[in-house]
Amino acid sequence: MAIVTLTTDYGEDSAYAAALKGSLLRVCPEARLYDLSHSIPPQDIVHAAFFLSEAIPWFPPQTIHVVVVDPGVGTARRLLYVEWQGQRILAPDNGVCTLLWRRQPAERILQLQNRQYFHETVSNTFHGRDILAPVAGHLANGLDPALLGPEVTDPVHLPFPQPRPQGEFLLGEIVFVDHFGNLLSNIHRDDWPGLRPVCVEISGIRPRWVRTYGEASRGEIVALWSSGGWLEIAVVEGHAAHRLNLGRGAPVLVTFARAENCP
Amino acid sequence: MAIVTLTTDYGEDSAYAAALKGSLLRVCPEARLYDLSHSIPPQDIVHAAFFLSEAIPWFPPQTIHVVVVDPGVGTARRLLYVEWQGQRILAPDNGVCTLLWRRQPAERILQLQNRQYFHETVSNTFHGRDILAPVAGHLANGLDPALLGPEVTDPVHLPFPQPRPQGEFLLGEIVFVDHFGNLLSNIHRDDWPGLRPVCVEISGIRPRWVRTYGEASRGEIVALWSSGGWLEIAVVEGHAAHRLNLGRGAPVLVTFARAENCP
Amino acid sequence: MAIVTLTTDYGEDSAYAAALKGSLLRVCPEARLYDLSHSIPPQDIVHAAFFLSEAIPWFPPQTIHVVVVDPGVGTARRLLYVEWQGQRILAPDNGVCTLLWRRQPAERILQLQNRQYFHETVSNTFHGRDILAPVAGHLANGLDPALLGPEVTDPVHLPFPQPRPQGEFLLGEIVFVDHFGNLLSNIHRDDWPGLRPVCVEISGIRPRWVRTYGEASRGEIVALWSSGGWLEIAVVEGHAAHRLNLGRGAPVLVTFARAENCP
Repeated sequence: MAIVTLTTDYGEDSAYAAALKGSLLRVCPEARLYDLSHSIPPQDIVHAAFFLSEAIPWFPPQTIHVVVVDPGVGTARRLLYVEWQGQRILAPDNGVCTLLWRRQPAERILQLQNRQYFHETVSNTFHGRDILAPVAGHLANGLDPALLGPEVTDPVHLPFPQPRPQGEFLLGEIVFVDHFGNLLSNIHRDDWPGLRPVCVEISGIRPRWVRTYGEASRGEIVALWSSGGWLEIAVVEGHAAHRLNLGRGAPVLVTFARAENCP
Repeated sequence: MAIVTLTTDYGEDSAYAAALKGSLLRVCPEARLYDLSHSIPPQDIVHAAFFLSEAIPWFPPQTIHVVVVDPGVGTARRLLYVEWQGQRILAPDNGVCTLLWRRQPAERILQLQNRQYFHETVSNTFHGRDILAPVAGHLANGLDPALLGPEVTDPVHLPFPQPRPQGEFLLGEIVFVDHFGNLLSNIHRDDWPGLRPVCVEISGIRPRWVRTYGEASRGEIVALWSSGGWLEIAVVEGHAAHRLNLGRGAPVLVTFARAENCP
Repeated sequence: MAIVTLTTDYGEDSAYAAALKGSLLRVCPEARLYDLSHSIPPQDIVHAAFFLSEAIPWFPPQTIHVVVVDPGVGTARRLLYVEWQGQRILAPDNGVCTLLWRRQPAERILQLQNRQYFHETVSNTFHGRDILAPVAGHLANGLDPALLGPEVTDPVHLPFPQPRPQGEFLLGEIVFVDHFGNLLSNIHRDDWPGLRPVCVEISGIRPRWVRTYGEASRGEIVALWSSGGWLEIAVVEGHAAHRLNLGRGAPVLVTFARAENCP
């Protein structure tokens, strides 16, 4: 039976996530629901976009992902059905899929328009419960997505910052702070094949490059490729964001060399 | 197979919620367990009552809901099995179902008394694990609830505040602060059919009435019907509770007019 | 189908827990995944050991428990498959099972070495997603654990503090603070059969001994056997850790008498 994941900014303490689950299970009691997180910072689409790009690619094909980070709820913003690398995503049209689409373009995007698959009454402020959850339930029951609504060719993209050259350096920036306080930048390993950072600079500090935290001693500031392939600044067994007093938007400078020439 | 939901004040970091899940799955490994929340504020029965009234009605019939917000654990307070609108609820007899019962009376209430369906040893401080979870497991296995214990005709009700007239106004109060800081009052749309608030006053401020957040600009204080039908005070893309420095108990004044006469 | 539980320090807001779930479901889409907690304090192995000892024994036999509290990720530390009382645990070899093993020794411990059951690429910093999750998926699919790797006879044990006599007293210490602020010590009821504490002293205070919170009045400091059998200091409907300003490591003194002689 279909796997359905839930990613929202409703909070772990929230009756909204609970009602969304009920609404979905009422349409498809056999669905296998999994919480990805209900702790996306409220209405933080950039955070959600990064979160999804780290999580969604790992799921089995045909998984249905319900994403509700939706500051525009109740306005004319569209709700989308997205097919991406075999995954199926239901989300507001606000750019939360931007980072996935950078990797690979979507195979199909439809607008949720057929009210037959919505809850019979739709509130003005809770489209997760009243639209996305029942649509997910119908998809889990085997509904042909073509029935959901018309194709969309102009989905919203976030203006996600791109690293750019600055003298001999590449200038990137921190785009995500993870639960451990690790600072993840917008510089991705796959864009620099065969190369390795030789000098990383952040906030006037030049952290040592390591393969993994355990190569350095407790409290040391290090730089490494994160498990998702992003250039990451970390404090071993510590919290880099607090220690360096840095967060999203902080600039990072890097120079590269051929990996085989590196120590 | 039966759907079972869990709502507790054990905390997301808690081994208690984990042990409760194990205890239930040991009796019925096939049950489909879903967390509603483990972040009910500790021992806050009023919060739990509101939470349940927003969440439980959305689930498929015959869902089993395990609710553990239980400051009286180990004392003589009863544990209940409640049938309400086709839902089945296992909870302490402390009023957590009050708001559901305001909507519709319970169809059946029994006291959990038959120790045959409890864990073989019952601790003094953890009846969620030792009584409610195994009973839920047996119900999920198809146990006839009539075997659980005798009928209860006098369950505990919370003295939930009711709005009352004050001059030309209706005087209500805030009863719930949601994860986004939205202030939800005890004034419900369904009690004022065909009417709409024309003037809402809270803490000397008169928020504009809107249908949804997106009708106002960022930072504006607005009033609207919440997705659950309660009169709600919100700050668009902000946190009303912090901004207004208000919480549960804050008074709200409202006047109504016929909806068709409203702009 | 196999039940699989997840216990990590990734945080509820974390894409890491989400990716781990995807990685596991990709190998075994039919597995029944349950979150125990993703809120273990970062890299706190002692906390995790206590958590597991309270939770794991309650699950049905053959449950697979994935545990990722792993400050040594990417170093030479081993990853283990542990059989304990019919439960199956996948965890780093850092002592997280110490308290379970105190109760009963493990029946079998193997090192995860057969890369055939890992993800095809293994990152340096995320072995939960790249090793433990896929191995759990293969076990859920029925893999014979003997194929995972060689036996381990010298797993790491935590130097968990033991209570010791001091004059007429037994001197223990607080080892765990639960979500409610209750202070749990390393003194276990099962080590003192037929006896009951008559005098408990902590931080110069002598809390009254009770069977359950409800025997005392709101705000009173009490001592009792926790639901897991540990000597616990609690504040009724309050937070003992904040009230007494105590935490892990705080000494507790106890004298015992025969239970039948106690009031």
